[in-house]
Amino acid sequence: MPADQALVRRANLSLVLRHLRERGPRSRAAVAAETGLNKTTVTSLVAELQARGLLKETGPQHEGAIGRPGLPLALDGSAVGALGVEVNVDYIAVFATDLGGRVLIDRRVSFDAMGCPAERTLTELDSVIRQASDGLRALGVHLAGITVAVPGLVDTGCGIVVVAPNLGWHNVPVAARLSGRAGQEGVELLAQAPITVDNDANLAALAEHTATGVSDLVYLTGEVGVGGGIIAGGRLLGGADGFAGEVGHVLVDPGGERCGCGRSGCWETKVGLAALIRKVSPEQAYGTPHQVLRDPEERLAELQLLRAAGEPGVEEALAEVGRWLGRGAATLVNLFNPRVIVLGGYFAQLAEALIPVAQEELERIGVAGSVARCRFVASGLGFGAASRGAAGVVVQRVLADPTLIAVRP
Amino acid sequence: MPADQALVRRANLSLVLRHLRERGPRSRAAVAAETGLNKTTVTSLVAELQARGLLKETGPQHEGAIGRPGLPLALDGSAVGALGVEVNVDYIAVFATDLGGRVLIDRRVSFDAMGCPAERTLTELDSVIRQASDGLRALGVHLAGITVAVPGLVDTGCGIVVVAPNLGWHNVPVAARLSGRAGQEGVELLAQAPITVDNDANLAALAEHTATGVSDLVYLTGEVGVGGGIIAGGRLLGGADGFAGEVGHVLVDPGGERCGCGRSGCWETKVGLAALIRKVSPEQAYGTPHQVLRDPEERLAELQLLRAAGEPGVEEALAEVGRWLGRGAATLVNLFNPRVIVLGGYFAQLAEALIPVAQEELERIGVAGSVARCRFVASGLGFGAASRGAAGVVVQRVLADPTLIAVRP
Repeated sequence: MPADQALVRRANLSLVLRHLRERGPRSRAAVAAETGLNKTTVTSLVAELQARGLLKETGPQHEGAIGRPGLPLALDGSAVGALGVEVNVDYIAVFATDLGGRVLIDRRVSFDAMGCPAERTLTELDSVIRQASDGLRALGVHLAGITVAVPGLVDTGCGIVVVAPNLGWHNVPVAARLSGRAGQEGVELLAQAPITVDNDANLAALAEHTATGVSDLVYLTGEVGVGGGIIAGGRLLGGADGFAGEVGHVLVDPGGERCGCGRSGCWETKVGLAALIRKVSPEQAYGTPHQVLRDPEERLAELQLLRAAGEPGVEEALAEVGRWLGRGAATLVNLFNPRVIVLGGYFAQLAEALIPVAQEELERIGVAGSVARCRFVASGLGFGAASRGAAGVVVQRVLADPTLIAVRP
Repeated sequence: MPADQALVRRANLSLVLRHLRERGPRSRAAVAAETGLNKTTVTSLVAELQARGLLKETGPQHEGAIGRPGLPLALDGSAVGALGVEVNVDYIAVFATDLGGRVLIDRRVSFDAMGCPAERTLTELDSVIRQASDGLRALGVHLAGITVAVPGLVDTGCGIVVVAPNLGWHNVPVAARLSGRAGQEGVELLAQAPITVDNDANLAALAEHTATGVSDLVYLTGEVGVGGGIIAGGRLLGGADGFAGEVGHVLVDPGGERCGCGRSGCWETKVGLAALIRKVSPEQAYGTPHQVLRDPEERLAELQLLRAAGEPGVEEALAEVGRWLGRGAATLVNLFNPRVIVLGGYFAQLAEALIPVAQEELERIGVAGSVARCRFVASGLGFGAASRGAAGVVVQRVLADPTLIAVRP
């Protein structure tokens, strides 16, 4: 086929597949009438989608008064799997669904990625991915793709992590290494499925968008670092290189403290977990964020205990972080005009203390029109948000190009 | 037709029209082969587009070796006009093209919109639009739509200017008033064409995108206020309410000067034209921006003269503005990852002094990956950028829905 016709064919395969996914089971005739494709074309597209294991006939049904009874078709994604894996400072999360959205894997393992070299973390990722692939294969599910979420700046085109400060990574070719293309020993997944890499907050933002249906949102993840993902008009804002949404190092206080990145006054120095811990335990004031946060979850648990015990200073420290959260969010609201700011990571766990203060500060500082219609909410997805979004990216990729799934033998 | 089929028809009319606009004249058979639409459908779509005066046959040509000679079709937008009007503090700009992009009107009239009530400005806008419409009609051009650019927060859905601080406007229903729907006396355009309203920097950003083809850019307009428009992935970033890109009141210096908006430390207090004038002429330090800038262009001309005369302090004032330009831009680059930051308004006129300092500061402050691939450039479109973008919006609307143009009698 000429290039143009192959493109048209792919777009039409996608159109039919998404139509059936969104509207539910219906006959070929209904698909033709509703999409404007002619019936012969629909018949041919359906045959190809069936051969690729993406559609099935669901048995005869009556279609009300509109037309003749047809043989309804439905999405059949049960044999096609999507895998999302998130590596963060102290855990690896794994999430897998089939094309229809059925959750097949949802788990998290502790792993000290902050404390070991990139090489060791890649080996662990490889092992986690192998194990998940094997598990899916045992369920009869073919893996259509893998997306890896990383807390850092990712060149999404090449699958290279340009820098992930809190993992200590610089220019790590994650996609190439995990698919065995880089030629090193030790890590040889050998392309069980195509691998892409993206920023964790971007992927979490996509997961929130899918879960809530909100078309304009900002997702903030509070960890050792502070990350952001932006959904604008229903799409992830990537920027020219996939680097958009780097909220952590936005300058919010020109006279402020030194940041781990070498600059001063970054938002992360005001609202990162290290900043909060330091305010509560000033004896830790001289460590780097990494020293302060060798085990972030344990630190957070300690803080919750101090708070429950009515320890002096904890509420004031939370209020101070809340104010800076609102102040930085005002910039985001002025620039992106989102409907909600979703708080993930540690922000979500302390949302009840942080949100009222942050919301008040946002309304005081932000441009009126936008802030009036924007509110903070805590993420309901927990630590699984990024891996869930990562699996969602694979699903979207298959829906956009069903020819990624091979015709069954 | 059922709703779905009408939608499909409209999408296909748009597809054929855009195809011919982008690829140039070609036969019905070529259009069918390249778009994947069947020939009968293309014939019917072409007939409708011809009836609406949007396509014409260009006479027989040979089509090389590929197929039979066909009768090539071409876009014929010569009878369809798009009008853009920009109101700013001291001028009204008017720009009109036909659907093919031929420039029909490009002019600017001085008008002191800052110094008179909204009512008076609307009357003037009405008069300018009438005059333009009459001029186009004399050329045989039917006006498909009008877009009005305003330096303020615009509810684009309703065509209401929520607030335009430097015009002194609050909740001015521009679209309703100019189309005679608001029922007031004096202003009665009576819907010669549909009217939409948008922010001036947004529209200028669209014009820059069209002119340069860059898919990720930030447009900054330096005037009495500082406005921003963001193109992300080839689309204007509107946000949930059309309010996105409000860069002027981003907090850049928590301890900074008071802004006209009532807050302190807004970016506008560092890089707005009033800030620059004050640094050069400290005797004006106590006026409001409006008092300082009763006639901004004259002030700018004075400043250029002082600079040419080697007046002490001018270069340092420009460097200070340049540094703050770079500092605020770093936030925009971290968040949007654009390929270029286009400087419009007074920034463009002083670009040669501002850009080197701003670029250096941007590279010092911004996140490395993004700033390495982003540079400041001066807009080449001058003061006409917003009105040009406004006309472009009308053209895009017709291309997206050719049924907006009535079938010719």
